[in-house]
Amino acid sequence: MPRPELLETFPNPYPDRPYEIFMTTPEFTSLCPIGGIETDAAELKLLEGGAPDFATINIWYEPGAKCVELKSLKLYLWSFRNDGIFYERVVNRILDDLVRVVEPQWMKVEGDFNVRGGLKSIIRVEHGRRAG
Amino acid sequence: MPRPELLETFPNPYPDRPYEIFMTTPEFTSLCPIGGIETDAAELKLLEGGAPDFATINIWYEPGAKCVELKSLKLYLWSFRNDGIFYERVVNRILDDLVRVVEPQWMKVEGDFNVRGGLKSIIRVEHGRRAG
Amino acid sequence: MPRPELLETFPNPYPDRPYEIFMTTPEFTSLCPIGGIETDAAELKLLEGGAPDFATINIWYEPGAKCVELKSLKLYLWSFRNDGIFYERVVNRILDDLVRVVEPQWMKVEGDFNVRGGLKSIIRVEHGRRAG
Amino acid sequence: MPRPELLETFPNPYPDRPYEIFMTTPEFTSLCPIGGIETDAAELKLLEGGAPDFATINIWYEPGAKCVELKSLKLYLWSFRNDGIFYERVVNRILDDLVRVVEPQWMKVEGDFNVRGGLKSIIRVEHGRRAG
Amino acid sequence: MPRPELLETFPNPYPDRPYEIFMTTPEFTSLCPIGGIETDAAELKLLEGGAPDFATINIWYEPGAKCVELKSLKLYLWSFRNDGIFYERVVNRILDDLVRVVEPQWMKVEGDFNVRGGLKSIIRVEHGRRAG
Amino acid sequence: MPRPELLETFPNPYPDRPYEIFMTTPEFTSLCPIGGIETDAAELKLLEGGAPDFATINIWYEPGAKCVELKSLKLYLWSFRNDGIFYERVVNRILDDLVRVVEPQWMKVEGDFNVRGGLKSIIRVEHGRRAG
Amino acid sequence: MPRPELLETFPNPYPDRPYEIFMTTPEFTSLCPIGGIETDAAELKLLEGGAPDFATINIWYEPGAKCVELKSLKLYLWSFRNDGIFYERVVNRILDDLVRVVEPQWMKVEGDFNVRGGLKSIIRVEHGRRAG
Amino acid sequence: MPRPELLETFPNPYPDRPYEIFMTTPEFTSLCPIGGIETDAAELKLLEGGAPDFATINIWYEPGAKCVELKSLKLYLWSFRNDGIFYERVVNRILDDLVRVVEPQWMKVEGDFNVRGGLKSIIRVEHGRRAG
Amino acid sequence: MPRPELLETFPNPYPDRPYEIFMTTPEFTSLCPIGGIETDAAELKLLEGGAPDFATINIWYEPGAKCVELKSLKLYLWSFRNDGIFYERVVNRILDDLVRVVEPQWMKVEGDFNVRGGLKSIIRVEHGRRAG
Amino acid sequence: MPRPELLETFPNPYPDRPYEIFMTTPEFTSLCPIGGIETDAAELKLLEGGAPDFATINIWYEPGAKCVELKSLKLYLWSFRNDGIFYERVVNRILDDLVRVVEPQWMKVEGDFNVRGGLKSIIRVEHGRRAG
Repeated sequence: MPRPELLETFPNPYPDRPYEIFMTTPEFTSLCPIGGIETDAAELKLLEGGAPDFATINIWYEPGAKCVELKSLKLYLWSFRNDGIFYERVVNRILDDLVRVVEPQWMKVEGDFNVRGGLKSIIRVEHGRRAG
Repeated sequence: MPRPELLETFPNPYPDRPYEIFMTTPEFTSLCPIGGIETDAAELKLLEGGAPDFATINIWYEPGAKCVELKSLKLYLWSFRNDGIFYERVVNRILDDLVRVVEPQWMKVEGDFNVRGGLKSIIRVEHGRRAG
Repeated sequence: MPRPELLETFPNPYPDRPYEIFMTTPEFTSLCPIGGIETDAAELKLLEGGAPDFATINIWYEPGAKCVELKSLKLYLWSFRNDGIFYERVVNRILDDLVRVVEPQWMKVEGDFNVRGGLKSIIRVEHGRRAG
Repeated sequence: MPRPELLETFPNPYPDRPYEIFMTTPEFTSLCPIGGIETDAAELKLLEGGAPDFATINIWYEPGAKCVELKSLKLYLWSFRNDGIFYERVVNRILDDLVRVVEPQWMKVEGDFNVRGGLKSIIRVEHGRRAG
Repeated sequence: MPRPELLETFPNPYPDRPYEIFMTTPEFTSLCPIGGIETDAAELKLLEGGAPDFATINIWYEPGAKCVELKSLKLYLWSFRNDGIFYERVVNRILDDLVRVVEPQWMKVEGDFNVRGGLKSIIRVEHGRRAG
Repeated sequence: MPRPELLETFPNPYPDRPYEIFMTTPEFTSLCPIGGIETDAAELKLLEGGAPDFATINIWYEPGAKCVELKSLKLYLWSFRNDGIFYERVVNRILDDLVRVVEPQWMKVEGDFNVRGGLKSIIRVEHGRRAG
Repeated sequence: MPRPELLETFPNPYPDRPYEIFMTTPEFTSLCPIGGIETDAAELKLLEGGAPDFATINIWYEPGAKCVELKSLKLYLWSFRNDGIFYERVVNRILDDLVRVVEPQWMKVEGDFNVRGGLKSIIRVEHGRRAG
Repeated sequence: MPRPELLETFPNPYPDRPYEIFMTTPEFTSLCPIGGIETDAAELKLLEGGAPDFATINIWYEPGAKCVELKSLKLYLWSFRNDGIFYERVVNRILDDLVRVVEPQWMKVEGDFNVRGGLKSIIRVEHGRRAG
Repeated sequence: MPRPELLETFPNPYPDRPYEIFMTTPEFTSLCPIGGIETDAAELKLLEGGAPDFATINIWYEPGAKCVELKSLKLYLWSFRNDGIFYERVVNRILDDLVRVVEPQWMKVEGDFNVRGGLKSIIRVEHGRRAG
Repeated sequence: MPRPELLETFPNPYPDRPYEIFMTTPEFTSLCPIGGIETDAAELKLLEGGAPDFATINIWYEPGAKCVELKSLKLYLWSFRNDGIFYERVVNRILDDLVRVVEPQWMKVEGDFNVRGGLKSIIRVEHGRRAG
């Protein structure tokens, strides 16, 4: 399962001024849930049913006292690689994990998933309100 | 005729938080009404008059208690394939069918139809108000 | 001169719900006025002065009780082909003719004219207010 | 099954000079074979297994004594709409049908099929040699 | 009918060196032949059957002793505006008229016609051989 | 120096309805001021210091009683060709000259200048308020 | 390690005519070798060192007696997901595995890998010679 | 360390009218902090740990009494070249230095940093409120 | 008239190996000849007839013993700014001037001129043969 | 000065088959030579004259017994960061250094340098002949 304990922060160097940070990666991958049941990495289900999903993950936030450390965010996103999980949960889960650790003023997460069966899906979720 | 009974849902995993889901497919096709009369699949009119129409269908919504299941949406959109139906009805009909089954907070449907006689048409229709 | 009598309508299949229809064609052509005097098709001035103009015409509207029939719109737009007419009049005239026949809730017309003398012109005009 | 009898030709207006004609449509659709068995339109299999395929079909040729009539080509391509047929056969079949009717100097057919399972396929096949 | 007598030339300022001139316009328009019969401008058939065609015309050549004067080429291309004529004839005719007047070392003409019935056509024809 | 006396107008054919006109040209050129001193065309400084500047000029306005005549605008913009003038003054000056002659309801002018020293500059200035 | 036993074929429906098949997927992922040592899926090294790699894989071939079955190709490409392997080996290995099973007339494989350390890599390898 | 003393200004030629100036350069480069410790140019750390970062810097402002001189801005941005500094500090620092020297009505600075570890970052920060 | 005496060279640092240098500028401008008569800068004809032309100039060459100095090439291209000259002569003249001064192994010059009267022109001319 | 001793190789895993490797980075930067004199990193000339240059470096090769290690290539390209060096030398020097260490069958290096004074330069140089 995703490992939020991998996320690290550093002190926001300009905590008194609202500003926006945007981060994006086209390299997110997880697995489809098998038979609608979400799975974790303990047993590698790949090739026995859980087909890979691919997405671009976009994150916008206004930092409070902390900024997320980029390398730790990368490791955290890698930790979804071998779990079976729904699109809607992926995006809400990333928001929840980041909000808990980074305590931002405002944050938006978007998952732009590759075409499956001719259909493309994009999920967007937001936390808090922008100050800037 | 379109078969809304094909549409399936699953429980929204984050029902307490408003968020947005966007789905798009460039693979929608139906037929022109013949002599302005809408037809259904019982008799295959193709080649006796009803020329094929092609469109990209875009759907945005904020889920309430339910999310639409992607595979069932694909099957539902396929069910327009051999019916004669106006552009305006296609888009309003998809909205109506989805709203009835998915009961979203807010939904928008857009049909972006291919050029006919040098003219391109896009129809957009909305239901409810965004909370997020 | 433009022939608005070519425009036809059909009953809006969803008259109770405000929604938006967009139509566009890159195939509009008319002539320059000769010596600033607008001319009509009775005498074909082509090559004796009135140079051809080319434009993309974009139309957005929210239908009331009626929708414009696509084929009739195409024929109406063709009827500008051999008249000498200013850009500003083309776009305002299309709006006036369509508003009279279609009686929309709201309508916007845009003419995006090709480069002349290194300068490109776009004219935009609107009628009424959006309900949706 | 595809209906090559729909194809019509007209005499090449410049038969003494080799030249190239290119035609393309993004509006080709057929069905997947069910269980690997190709099906025809007599029985509409749609929704009982044969999923729709979508492709852009590109055709290049050097005419001999005849040119293919555009409207008849459109009708011929529509006739694949409700048959179950492999990608490889679609493209080779179109080439064979056109070569038989149009008797070109040279012809190339390309089918650019939409993504399925994350994979896109393009098939290209050629007949004869270019003179020009 | 097209008026090749509008074409003018000027002496090639560098006649001893082979070089290439390319000219292109997206503003070509003519009419469909009515009932397959080609028509001329004497009687304006527009709106009684002959639908407008639109194309981009591309011309490449290596000049011999003469270059085509740009403004005269524009007038010549305008002269197709109200004639009913097939795509294949448009492109071959432009080549023939230009070759007769300009006597180039080599010339290629391409007509890239707008989508009709979901199908796009491009015709390419060549005269002579490149020296450069 | 720029010659606003070149600007001509014609009566707005639809003076009772607010609408928007946009004009753009990628063909604006002037010179850098030499040693920070603005120069005029009386003495052609080119090559003795004043390097050429290039810009795209974009103009939006809502006409009042008058519209600017396109050809006269082109001539006016040409009149900057051999003067040394700062970016900020170019854009404000064009706005001032046009507002004086055209007396629009609202006008915006934008100068999008080519890269110099790895830096690109865009200046935007506005007059009045939109009615439409 | 990659599992070529997943690859399946079907008989080429047009074995007597050389033609080209192109397939592409942007959804290839494998792992970096750890300390330069290639690893396999038996032990999931992810997060203990082997960072994920992402690539688009492009495959062109001229079939002989057999065509590769698309779904089986997808499964085969998935089987690299949790192995540590060099770019150069990925691309050559895919070519070798496909050539052994599909026995094509000609085949080209290209791996277009995502940026790492500001550097992008593309590897291309070919087998046999084109007949068509 | 960055050298704000390089920044120069000139008097705003139109101080009474609010307008917007935008400047952008894709040629910003600095170094990563080593071990999270920011470094300055006194000792060139390059190749002993501090990897180069690359960004596009976008600046928007409404001038007050002064405009920033373009060449001096370029020199100021060059002065980050050999310092180790965090993304968040780069963007906030540029804003602070410019605000101090240029005293604008409003200013926005955006740093669009190249991909690192598959992740791209964009930082945006603003000062004051727009008048125009 | 163009001033080839502005062109400077520096010794090719790798004279023993054939290699290619490409240079391009979108900032070329000259004037139309007035009444077909080419003019020079002695009298500034601007606004009395000679309309500005704009082009992108592309230059490819394989150096012999000398390379053209970039700044001097820029000054040379500026020297066309106020002369009336035909497109065909511009491109051939640049080739001739550069060949005389730089004595390259091979050189190609292309002038891509902006649209005039709806027509775009590109002229390409070459000298010598590539060794590499 | 550039440090070729940073370049490392690993054994080509498929030495018996010719294949192509392409690598590209948009993150190359060096300095202009000051007064035409090439400088090295011993003394940091930045801001006393040597303006930064920026380029995309593209490298294609067919490996022999060795492949260049990606991380070492990145470090080698970083080593140009603070030296004053001509474009022509940059590209030829990278080729020479890589050929000496990697001993490829064939190699091409291209430097695509950012616009300076409105002019963009691209240098391409090649070593050996392709086998594949």
